[in-house]
Amino acid sequence: MKTVKQMIQETEIGAAFYQATFGIEKEGLRVTPTGELALTAHPVEFGNRSFHPYIQTDYSESQLELITPPLSTIKESYEWLTALHDVALQTLPSDEAIWPISMPMVLPDESVIPIAKLDNKDDVTYREILTEKYGKKKQMISGIHYNFELDDQLVVRLFDCQTDYSNKESFKSMLYLKLTKNFLRYRWLLTYLLGASPTVDKSFFANQKIPQDYVRSIRSSQYGYVNPSEVAVSFHSIEDYVYSLQDMVEKGFLSEEKEFYSAVRFRGTNKAEELLTKGISYLELRSFDLNPFDPFGMSKHTMEFVHLFCLYMIWMDETATTEEIAVGEEMSRLTAMEQPEQISSFQKEGFQLLKQMEEMIQATNGTKSALNCIQEAKKHLIDPNSTIAARMVRGIEEKGSYIDFSLELAKQYKNEATMKPYNLRGFEPLEMSTQLLLFDALQKGIQVEILDAQDQFLKLTFDQHSEFVKNGNMTSKDSYIAPLIMENKTVTKKILDSAGFRVPAGEEYVTLAEGKTAFWRYEQKQIVVKPKSTNYGLGISVFKHAPTKKDYERALEIAFKEDTAVLVEEYIPGTEYRFFVLDGKVPAILLRTPANVVGDGQKSIKELVAEKNEDPLRGEEKHRSPLERIELGELEQLMLKAQGYTIESIPELNTVVYLRENSNISTGGDSIDVTDEIDDSYKQAAIDMSEIIGAKVSGIDLIIPDTTLRSTKDHLGYTVLEANFNPAMHMHAFVYKGKGRRLTMGILKMLFPELWEKEADNE
Amino acid sequence: MKTVKQMIQETEIGAAFYQATFGIEKEGLRVTPTGELALTAHPVEFGNRSFHPYIQTDYSESQLELITPPLSTIKESYEWLTALHDVALQTLPSDEAIWPISMPMVLPDESVIPIAKLDNKDDVTYREILTEKYGKKKQMISGIHYNFELDDQLVVRLFDCQTDYSNKESFKSMLYLKLTKNFLRYRWLLTYLLGASPTVDKSFFANQKIPQDYVRSIRSSQYGYVNPSEVAVSFHSIEDYVYSLQDMVEKGFLSEEKEFYSAVRFRGTNKAEELLTKGISYLELRSFDLNPFDPFGMSKHTMEFVHLFCLYMIWMDETATTEEIAVGEEMSRLTAMEQPEQISSFQKEGFQLLKQMEEMIQATNGTKSALNCIQEAKKHLIDPNSTIAARMVRGIEEKGSYIDFSLELAKQYKNEATMKPYNLRGFEPLEMSTQLLLFDALQKGIQVEILDAQDQFLKLTFDQHSEFVKNGNMTSKDSYIAPLIMENKTVTKKILDSAGFRVPAGEEYVTLAEGKTAFWRYEQKQIVVKPKSTNYGLGISVFKHAPTKKDYERALEIAFKEDTAVLVEEYIPGTEYRFFVLDGKVPAILLRTPANVVGDGQKSIKELVAEKNEDPLRGEEKHRSPLERIELGELEQLMLKAQGYTIESIPELNTVVYLRENSNISTGGDSIDVTDEIDDSYKQAAIDMSEIIGAKVSGIDLIIPDTTLRSTKDHLGYTVLEANFNPAMHMHAFVYKGKGRRLTMGILKMLFPELWEKEADNE
Repeated sequence: MKTVKQMIQETEIGAAFYQATFGIEKEGLRVTPTGELALTAHPVEFGNRSFHPYIQTDYSESQLELITPPLSTIKESYEWLTALHDVALQTLPSDEAIWPISMPMVLPDESVIPIAKLDNKDDVTYREILTEKYGKKKQMISGIHYNFELDDQLVVRLFDCQTDYSNKESFKSMLYLKLTKNFLRYRWLLTYLLGASPTVDKSFFANQKIPQDYVRSIRSSQYGYVNPSEVAVSFHSIEDYVYSLQDMVEKGFLSEEKEFYSAVRFRGTNKAEELLTKGISYLELRSFDLNPFDPFGMSKHTMEFVHLFCLYMIWMDETATTEEIAVGEEMSRLTAMEQPEQISSFQKEGFQLLKQMEEMIQATNGTKSALNCIQEAKKHLIDPNSTIAARMVRGIEEKGSYIDFSLELAKQYKNEATMKPYNLRGFEPLEMSTQLLLFDALQKGIQVEILDAQDQFLKLTFDQHSEFVKNGNMTSKDSYIAPLIMENKTVTKKILDSAGFRVPAGEEYVTLAEGKTAFWRYEQKQIVVKPKSTNYGLGISVFKHAPTKKDYERALEIAFKEDTAVLVEEYIPGTEYRFFVLDGKVPAILLRTPANVVGDGQKSIKELVAEKNEDPLRGEEKHRSPLERIELGELEQLMLKAQGYTIESIPELNTVVYLRENSNISTGGDSIDVTDEIDDSYKQAAIDMSEIIGAKVSGIDLIIPDTTLRSTKDHLGYTVLEANFNPAMHMHAFVYKGKGRRLTMGILKMLFPELWEKEADNE
Repeated sequence: MKTVKQMIQETEIGAAFYQATFGIEKEGLRVTPTGELALTAHPVEFGNRSFHPYIQTDYSESQLELITPPLSTIKESYEWLTALHDVALQTLPSDEAIWPISMPMVLPDESVIPIAKLDNKDDVTYREILTEKYGKKKQMISGIHYNFELDDQLVVRLFDCQTDYSNKESFKSMLYLKLTKNFLRYRWLLTYLLGASPTVDKSFFANQKIPQDYVRSIRSSQYGYVNPSEVAVSFHSIEDYVYSLQDMVEKGFLSEEKEFYSAVRFRGTNKAEELLTKGISYLELRSFDLNPFDPFGMSKHTMEFVHLFCLYMIWMDETATTEEIAVGEEMSRLTAMEQPEQISSFQKEGFQLLKQMEEMIQATNGTKSALNCIQEAKKHLIDPNSTIAARMVRGIEEKGSYIDFSLELAKQYKNEATMKPYNLRGFEPLEMSTQLLLFDALQKGIQVEILDAQDQFLKLTFDQHSEFVKNGNMTSKDSYIAPLIMENKTVTKKILDSAGFRVPAGEEYVTLAEGKTAFWRYEQKQIVVKPKSTNYGLGISVFKHAPTKKDYERALEIAFKEDTAVLVEEYIPGTEYRFFVLDGKVPAILLRTPANVVGDGQKSIKELVAEKNEDPLRGEEKHRSPLERIELGELEQLMLKAQGYTIESIPELNTVVYLRENSNISTGGDSIDVTDEIDDSYKQAAIDMSEIIGAKVSGIDLIIPDTTLRSTKDHLGYTVLEANFNPAMHMHAFVYKGKGRRLTMGILKMLFPELWEKEADNE
């Protein structure tokens, strides 16, 4: 009979050996600024827990559970875990954070600890049974569950090169069973390396005996989250596992199968019995304490080490016997109760394990990063002071109590998550609008699949209903022709004009000669000469006074350098507003002003600019934040000079000094929300324009000379400059002045109205 | 009081003087191959005459009337006139043509000549009255009406620089009235230059006295299409015009106002009376014979001359009095009856007119083309033999009769219109698919506005319902996300895969390293390595045998040169078919084969290629025809060499010699329609795929190894390679082998189902 190692070596499977699917479930208590359990309700913003795939409550209403979907790399899993923390922390009340360690803070009286308020009665009953049996406080211990699934292609390749198993499912179950048995045998090493619950308030134990000293892991010890000693389940074979587990439930030692708190749980079926026919789909590894030194409870590094550890459990020749499993469990419990700074009692076996893991990595052409993981673990084995538990102890001693130690970290992580609310950490390479939409989807419990990150392509699913979204607002709700119309300025103008909206008079020319001949049309007018399809201001000439023939022709030449077609339009004086039209409404109107500072009579322009740039909305990197830093380049200095300033000038109190002509956000301009200040007649006009174009989502740019006047049919108060498809959404969400408007949530409402109807039903 | 000339000079209006709106109405009899009046019904393909804006019948069922919309340049008007002829001639039965001269062929007995079969009873009654009064034969004279409207901006500019008129509408009417009076006074010159009805069969006149010799224009003479002599209408003022016209109707000299056959008609109102309040909107100039030397009845050059002539009628200082008008009318009648080779009796006045027109053009910076028009007219005035009428006489004498002369031209124009059915002449700069769609819209009577020719952007309107179309098939019926999905190969594959369709297995890589690491996935497979978004075959490597690691890595490097993302997919052997999915149906399936010739045992490959290239479907220019010519370049010669041929080789009878590996139409491949030969199970699969993507219009490329097998759920018979938005339509319409499929009409049916419902109602 071939060993797994032989099979792997024989198939030359290489990198495929490292292919797997990962999922993380992370519990954490909500905590008040003073370090007490937050007794507030699970935020309504998270929508309905009956279907939320990502943000749940565990035992207690105050115990968040964040769940990543199954993902094929550790990198992605960590990104998702990051993002879910961002969503959770930004959604919680501003003074609530997440307790970063496994053992709870000083808990209130049991009667006060709230059980999770779930719709499903069985879920509530189960929690009541647990309360009765273990007490509420023990249920408040939090941890991380690590779901691990072997890649199907790997399983197939191994299956194909052996003859002992004729059924792929039993072969796979064999692999999982081997992994499980060896994991239970050797998991003491993980307890040593990752144990992170050295202490807890003595009130936690009530009438129990308690450990006197710091330990590696209360949670993994006999004081932790364990079943009563009479619970005994066999891992000898799937059959033994199923029957012994059923026996425990029948005997009443367990209320349900899921009450079995093993370090490894077989997953993929609702009932254990189904394992006999369907086999094991994946494993849930449940033995991990929260690592307070990682903002999300487990570092990427740890995730990789656990993966390597699991692979080695398959790779190694032997498979632990039932007796050996019992030995291993005892070794883990002993390790858990060791003092953190103490050398492991099983150091020698540890070194041997790590050495063999290293050999495995080398034999399979594993990555440098994998080898580093092993080196790191070796160091911790040599020096117990470098383990998480030991570092926690030092931190606790330094801060005076584990409460202060944890609370400080909780606040730090809260702060990091809320500092740049326009970013969804973990998904920062995506465009801002897509990040915001993702945030909202994760918050509401809409399932998200990133089909193509480079291309900003998402699949969103609620229940059986899927929608595809690109760039945050390109959806199935818009017709194809609408963006094509908006993409073509001439066509847009013709359509809006013939529908009775006021557009700048003007013409399109496709040759320079044709444009020049038409000078007579413009010689007495203020005009703008611009390339037909360039958007960034290149090649545009504005004549606020009627142009000379020579200047007109020069402007045409400049514009024709940028495009094969040029528009000459009347210049419309007045202020430009961006109307964001969404599904027949105008949820946001923005006024953009050129980069500027306001004098205080004391600081220089340079200082005022530096001060204004400190706003976290003005990010360091270009195009990665809703506002941009004001620069003091050549253009800005010229502009200052024209007004009689230098960057060292000190403007008087309340004097506004402009540093730019143009009001683009990208050159340091300010965004001012004026949604509530603009008369409905203008909103209606923008809505009507979108309707004529057939657009559900559009950004309509209107020039309005006097917003105090209503726009009427006989006296149109606006001129429409442009209709934009894919209008920016983030700039409305985070504004310099006024109220931010969360347009991405509006997109979700348009796509999934049923979700909001469902919520309304529940109210 | 300022003269118009002064006003024009004062405002320095320049090129604006030449701005105007033009419209052409052109009548023409349908003719059989033997030169008889076609007695067939107006083709049903033209849809319903109750609304058709472009293709109508005039007096007789056999008398086509082609109507261009109002357009702002002569160039466009001529293009439209061209296109309408193309549509008309391609739609008529293959043996019917359009009679190219004003005077009819030898007409059958009056009882046989069919009056137009119109839905509106009043229209029929009116024709019956005309029959009674003038006889059917006279109603069969055809001509061109030239509609002319002054540019509003021109009118405003002139109006603004005078003080005599305080009302713009009366000012405008004054201009039109002046134009009309002078036109009637001087129109003899147009009769001289453009008269083109020198003779007609004597049976035409029945009992009338007839001209014995060739004349310039029977149509413009007393033998032509004129009211009885008692009809007298004054052009002195609008009021006089209205009251005298009403008087004629009241007295019964005219059955209706529109029976007044003046050379100029005031337009813009239904009833003459409304002219008093609304003024004149535009003029209808009705005095033009069909010019048989132009395929469409009037040359672009003539259109320009008429325009200049009208402008001069405004420009000149004097305004003709009623007496002068009478003189002018008489001069025109005399000119009409002159022999064509005779010097004009009014040559001196003619030269004077042309000289003054020339001065006007120079004073207003008119174009060189305008000056050429005048030069041309001068030549004709000097040499009567160069006039249209004189040239016709020579042609008639040469052919033996005006029937033979006309019939030959009729057939020539029919042939020119039908030779390249994939082109819509007049609109050839548009893409082929847009040309075909336009053709169909013009045929069915859907109103067309070309919003942007460069961008293939059309507005189609029927009744109150408008639709916008870009590139022939991008419409409001498709959702925005559908083409975005299809544009992204990875996203398309993920979506089709997860919906259970068979796609090539494969992965996307965004770094070379990532791609290289994944070699294990492919080392035993046939694969294709290709850049994610390049479409033209660049950077693609096909491994029909499993690649070596080195070759695989090289292929990745090549692909990454073309794109930032690379796909590695399994290679699928079999034949590729293009399924065109339209609104839940598959109206066309195409098989494309590489460029090839079939031997006849006699001709060389070079000769066979030359012969195959003669097919008019293989146009001279690239991408302007449904098939492309086979080239004999380096690649083709290499391919021949590999098969043991040179271009001089003579392949045996029925031997197929391929000249290319790839089956692209663009490199000379053949298109073979197989719509009726492919099992419905494949069509349903393509329809289902489009539905999943949400596309109404798509081109689905399926590889089918064996089309004799049905595709079933358990045994999928295909692999889907790609889903294309904006799939080419023209290649299905004109195929090398099999039946052409008119997909553009399907697009119109999807956009305007009501039009087809309406037709069904009428059946």
